[in-house]
Amino acid sequence: MRRAQGWAANPGARAALIGGADHSSNTGISAVLRLPPKGTHAHSMVQAFLALGKSELDAFRAYADVYPDDCLLLVDTIDTLNSGIPNAITVFRELEKKGHRPVGIRLDSGDLAYLSILAGKMFDEAGLRDTLIVLSNRLDELVIWQILTQIRAEAGRYGVDAEGLIGRLVFGVGTGLITSHGDAALDGVYKLSGVNSVGRWIPALKISETPAKIINPGVKKLWRIYDRRLKATADLVTLSDEDPRQADLLFLHHPVESEIYRMVKREDISRIEPLLTEVMRAGRVVCELPGIEELRRRRLSDVDCLDSGVRRLINPHVYHVSISRPLWELKERMIRQYKR
Amino acid sequence: MRRAQGWAANPGARAALIGGADHSSNTGISAVLRLPPKGTHAHSMVQAFLALGKSELDAFRAYADVYPDDCLLLVDTIDTLNSGIPNAITVFRELEKKGHRPVGIRLDSGDLAYLSILAGKMFDEAGLRDTLIVLSNRLDELVIWQILTQIRAEAGRYGVDAEGLIGRLVFGVGTGLITSHGDAALDGVYKLSGVNSVGRWIPALKISETPAKIINPGVKKLWRIYDRRLKATADLVTLSDEDPRQADLLFLHHPVESEIYRMVKREDISRIEPLLTEVMRAGRVVCELPGIEELRRRRLSDVDCLDSGVRRLINPHVYHVSISRPLWELKERMIRQYKR
Repeated sequence: MRRAQGWAANPGARAALIGGADHSSNTGISAVLRLPPKGTHAHSMVQAFLALGKSELDAFRAYADVYPDDCLLLVDTIDTLNSGIPNAITVFRELEKKGHRPVGIRLDSGDLAYLSILAGKMFDEAGLRDTLIVLSNRLDELVIWQILTQIRAEAGRYGVDAEGLIGRLVFGVGTGLITSHGDAALDGVYKLSGVNSVGRWIPALKISETPAKIINPGVKKLWRIYDRRLKATADLVTLSDEDPRQADLLFLHHPVESEIYRMVKREDISRIEPLLTEVMRAGRVVCELPGIEELRRRRLSDVDCLDSGVRRLINPHVYHVSISRPLWELKERMIRQYKR
Repeated sequence: MRRAQGWAANPGARAALIGGADHSSNTGISAVLRLPPKGTHAHSMVQAFLALGKSELDAFRAYADVYPDDCLLLVDTIDTLNSGIPNAITVFRELEKKGHRPVGIRLDSGDLAYLSILAGKMFDEAGLRDTLIVLSNRLDELVIWQILTQIRAEAGRYGVDAEGLIGRLVFGVGTGLITSHGDAALDGVYKLSGVNSVGRWIPALKISETPAKIINPGVKKLWRIYDRRLKATADLVTLSDEDPRQADLLFLHHPVESEIYRMVKREDISRIEPLLTEVMRAGRVVCELPGIEELRRRRLSDVDCLDSGVRRLINPHVYHVSISRPLWELKERMIRQYKR
């Protein structure tokens, strides 16, 4: 929340929970969505104990007393390997003796891959094989990928099973996610594409010196085309009176480049899904608003329909959004007419 | 506003107005701050005229009728050089005949440097030497720098005076500014640095595997050190009982690296400014809250005090924030004690 751009912390956390995060440390939005928030104590809890002459172990014990069944300990206030993890193991053993199940530790600084391996080893040797290892500190998808790669390459050298260790890792992603790092704004525009004159829609156009900024005129529909493997192969924008489900041959035109198009035979298509849903009419919501669980399920099945090439983290294949031949022709005709 | 992260559009626009923007197109925040908002008509105004069989010139005339003294025309709906600018010139001449002063045009696509030069030439030839040329489209500080560089290199070739043209340019910066592109979050933390026990402050510490994440313990003060040229040479963090204004020799220690420090003689210092101001006490605001004009003035004078090397756009010199010797020693002593 402290790194978000103002109140964006709330819709941002909700979007993350739909987009793939299991939990959020934003307690307010978690309560609204009826999802359990997750987090640890602050460094300041341990710091305050130390400043007042007590120890890190005292601080951990105090926390375990209050949260015996939610005991996740932040172990990097003094020295992760020589103080934090050994003290956590002591407290976790005490909890287990009392019949509780300790949750795990959080690492928030240093070489997270290396520290994870050593933490895993220390927990294994202490017989605490179920405790989680939560990682945080400027994480994003590439840092996580590097941590996983490093663990797979090096865990064996320490006698730690890499996949077993990875199975108990949790990634706490903060700033990069809540600020949408690398793509901080949806690069969308809101342009006039038609004017309703006496009940009839007249297409409107905006030409531009930048071809990608020339809009697609007219009232349109949007479709998703699935190939034989049931993978989404392209989205198609058509005029509103077209129905690509009736066509034997689909013409998928590049939205900007005149010479780039693709023909797809009906037999190579498993499904054509209409994507537009009426949400509002005359200022009123006219559809059921899905709950968070339904949104998460849709997101998961949408992502499942994408090819691995499109989902690649670095240099992904660009997913095609094509326009139909009638739409291309309308656009070309209007450009010629406006430029005349 | 459409590109900001939610309501961040409002504090973001306010921050931009303090930070150096002359005006904002955010009408709400402009009204709150009593600053005139600035903007143009939308592309949709021209598009709607065209869709209904009228012309761009008709659209411009209609706008000039409503805003004769604020007439800024968006000229890239059809064709900037062959339609937009010639039509704007026609309308501006009509406005001048009626005793109004046209404001200018906005270019929102294409090669902005090249189009600016040609627009400047066309306006010069039409005798419209005062009209502004507003540029927008994914601008940031580097794009603006490139546009200025290109105009200085190429304007002469078209018989246009580069500096005269630059003097009439206005830059409309949107997405990059409102999302704080490249640095979307203030990378600050809120850590416990002291515990007040029976009226006495006891310093608190947090060690970290990442040295830069080790905090500076204790209750502290912050000072700005100005060199003989009245340029800020470093900020200095001291313990609260220190007063560097009383010292003959200032010891500026790197906050993390033990071997890096600098000694500055009092005679090489023109001024030492205390930076901390009490803003709240016991939950109440105890200072005068400055208005937008005062904040702008302070920002301007603060930036004036920075060396050009620190202000460089690419690879700037890092401004030093140092800690005092007593603070360094307290930190070292506490780290040794905690690690024991």
